[in-house]
Amino acid sequence: MVNHKAAQLDRTFAALTDPTRRAILARLEREEAVSVSDLAQPFAITLPAVMKHLDVLDAAGLVVRAKAGRIVTVRLSPAPMQEAMDWLRRYERFWGASLDRLAAFAEAREAAARESDA
Amino acid sequence: MVNHKAAQLDRTFAALTDPTRRAILARLEREEAVSVSDLAQPFAITLPAVMKHLDVLDAAGLVVRAKAGRIVTVRLSPAPMQEAMDWLRRYERFWGASLDRLAAFAEAREAAARESDA
Repeated sequence: MVNHKAAQLDRTFAALTDPTRRAILARLEREEAVSVSDLAQPFAITLPAVMKHLDVLDAAGLVVRAKAGRIVTVRLSPAPMQEAMDWLRRYERFWGASLDRLAAFAEAREAAARESDA
Repeated sequence: MVNHKAAQLDRTFAALTDPTRRAILARLEREEAVSVSDLAQPFAITLPAVMKHLDVLDAAGLVVRAKAGRIVTVRLSPAPMQEAMDWLRRYERFWGASLDRLAAFAEAREAAARESDA
């Protein structure tokens, strides 16, 4: 179970390492179902190259493809990204901590300003 | 700027694709500074292999190394993970949406149960 989860995280993060794949996911976040040719259109790469990126996203469980006649449409399958985000969430306290330090610094400066005014 | 950000995300996600590297980051989340030999100890891999993983983490800006005498200590540098999390955050609404649907379903079922009781 742990190994299965680790292997899924490996695949999710690996799928996210490429800017074209991230752009495909970002588009599928805005549009529910997009044909492969529409998806490929903004990129200066060949259709087979886009298909390869879709294979990686599909293997990671991040997209699902459906064929209707000659049109293949692609949809987002966001669940694995939730797991990736849960993994990253443990570091949230560091960003929180630096904001807390910033707030403490601002408060101390204000207090010093009040004292010098008095 | 956008390309610089994309390249940083590439490096961050690539650094997170490996379970040994994720385990190193998880340990540095719990312990502030750990020597390289202490870090390597739990893993069934050679010290040079651990050093290579640390090189990847260092290149991605996820750890910093400091040398004191003959001891190299490693610390977490969590900032790039915040960017990775911000990228993933746009998909949060999908998890929220499925929870909303679940809540709506539970409410509808309760309402139906009340009606059949009446």
